[in-house]
Amino acid sequence: MNELEFLAGLRAMPLHPGARGLVDDCAVIEFGSETLILTHDMMAEGTHFEPKASMADVAWKLVAMNLSDLASKGAEPVGALVGVSLGRDDAGFLSGLREALSVYNVPLLGGDTIAATGPSTFGITAVGRATHKPVPSRKGSKAGDALYVTGIVGRAMLGFEGHPQHLDAFNRPQPRLGEGRSLAPLASAMMDISDGLLLDGWRMASASAVTFRLNPETIPVADTARMDECLRWGDDYELLFTADPNRDLPVPATRIGTVEPEANAPIFLGGTALTEPGSLGYRHG
Amino acid sequence: MNELEFLAGLRAMPLHPGARGLVDDCAVIEFGSETLILTHDMMAEGTHFEPKASMADVAWKLVAMNLSDLASKGAEPVGALVGVSLGRDDAGFLSGLREALSVYNVPLLGGDTIAATGPSTFGITAVGRATHKPVPSRKGSKAGDALYVTGIVGRAMLGFEGHPQHLDAFNRPQPRLGEGRSLAPLASAMMDISDGLLLDGWRMASASAVTFRLNPETIPVADTARMDECLRWGDDYELLFTADPNRDLPVPATRIGTVEPEANAPIFLGGTALTEPGSLGYRHG
Repeated sequence: MNELEFLAGLRAMPLHPGARGLVDDCAVIEFGSETLILTHDMMAEGTHFEPKASMADVAWKLVAMNLSDLASKGAEPVGALVGVSLGRDDAGFLSGLREALSVYNVPLLGGDTIAATGPSTFGITAVGRATHKPVPSRKGSKAGDALYVTGIVGRAMLGFEGHPQHLDAFNRPQPRLGEGRSLAPLASAMMDISDGLLLDGWRMASASAVTFRLNPETIPVADTARMDECLRWGDDYELLFTADPNRDLPVPATRIGTVEPEANAPIFLGGTALTEPGSLGYRHG
Repeated sequence: MNELEFLAGLRAMPLHPGARGLVDDCAVIEFGSETLILTHDMMAEGTHFEPKASMADVAWKLVAMNLSDLASKGAEPVGALVGVSLGRDDAGFLSGLREALSVYNVPLLGGDTIAATGPSTFGITAVGRATHKPVPSRKGSKAGDALYVTGIVGRAMLGFEGHPQHLDAFNRPQPRLGEGRSLAPLASAMMDISDGLLLDGWRMASASAVTFRLNPETIPVADTARMDECLRWGDDYELLFTADPNRDLPVPATRIGTVEPEANAPIFLGGTALTEPGSLGYRHG
């Protein structure tokens, strides 16, 4: 099976109401008097990182990509469980894990360590608590809202290619935890754009049953000569969100478009209707 | 690194107080007005199951081993997140996952699916809520307590070897969720014995700073001619616990020994002092 087929199989399981139909970035669970936010993301050697990658960077990125999901819910991290298959340079992995957990103040909660053959696989379950309710989702964008993105897209692509000033964007991405918390009270919808701005935007517009009209000239890209790639490559852990255009934003973000009533495509990039998600980004469900 | 060395590295990280020093089966977190119980266990092809194994059985066992950790805390399952690297017979995996989640009434909360090269790796994060406080741990056994085990040990070993009446004990273990909940109010210490009765008993006695004196004639083993192996092979998801010997037990369990003040070994099996854990069971930290 490919990932989309398998995901369809998972969606047919008995789902917790907090699973949000497995179409959101996190599970959102009412637990006691609070709201628990849970996410689990994995990385595998050969698929998500190269065999020669720094294992400290891999561990950092594994933490960051999970915290980015919490950020998209405006959640505050509580802790993390880590699953590790031992392999090359476990000491490096531990050092990067320690750095990331320390920098973001995420204490370790537990996990599992296994001896496995073949390429290494890692997983983290990030646990957070909601700081604002309702907890933002991909649904909720309304016609008339403005569409915003934090930061600059395409930096991870350039970092992957070795551009010195963008290496950190690829190797040591920074989850937008503070921004997510500040934006949660005013965002009508929010998600991170780890799979690429266009594909993730397509998903948010579809989930919200609206159309995003993006103004390409306003989108902050790392290399204007390679705009198409910057909008599609992904691995940028920025936040995409919609909000009332009359509200002041509490953090820096760039307005890149407007939300319109649902038209014949979820996204218009300038005058071009984008109807098929296949060519828009990194598709792994 | 081997697993014990890596685990030592994890224990040196900033730990959440609920991580219980990474020496318990679950994290126990006060969250809102309730107590959250979290555990994460993995299985890898070639290490935890054979390449020709039924993937439906693998998925079942992955769920069961995580729920068994919740059972040892007397926890009620809330849901599960699943991490899957796609491979051979993903449909079989999905069918076993569905069966196990349905039988134990554990709704899916989320997870991640990745395309990976090489042997498959799977992980589950089980989420539960405590039904009794204090939540049982490996600490707490007191001199004068009685030592008990549920069920029969050694069945998984015989099932692994192909004995027809024990196949299910290996392929489709049943977590003792009901027993764990009933026992939590009276157990002074409790854990599951997935790594073998002697090794896990050694850990509980050590954590509690007591000595367990086991009466070998009373231990319920699946094959009395292979008692030593039955006590060491592991993969039995039974509960080991200590309690006041004067209390009636709410569920069937066998008294297999007595808790004594800490002596020169954590465990005496009959008259034999067991001081070194290396030969006592399946050691993976």
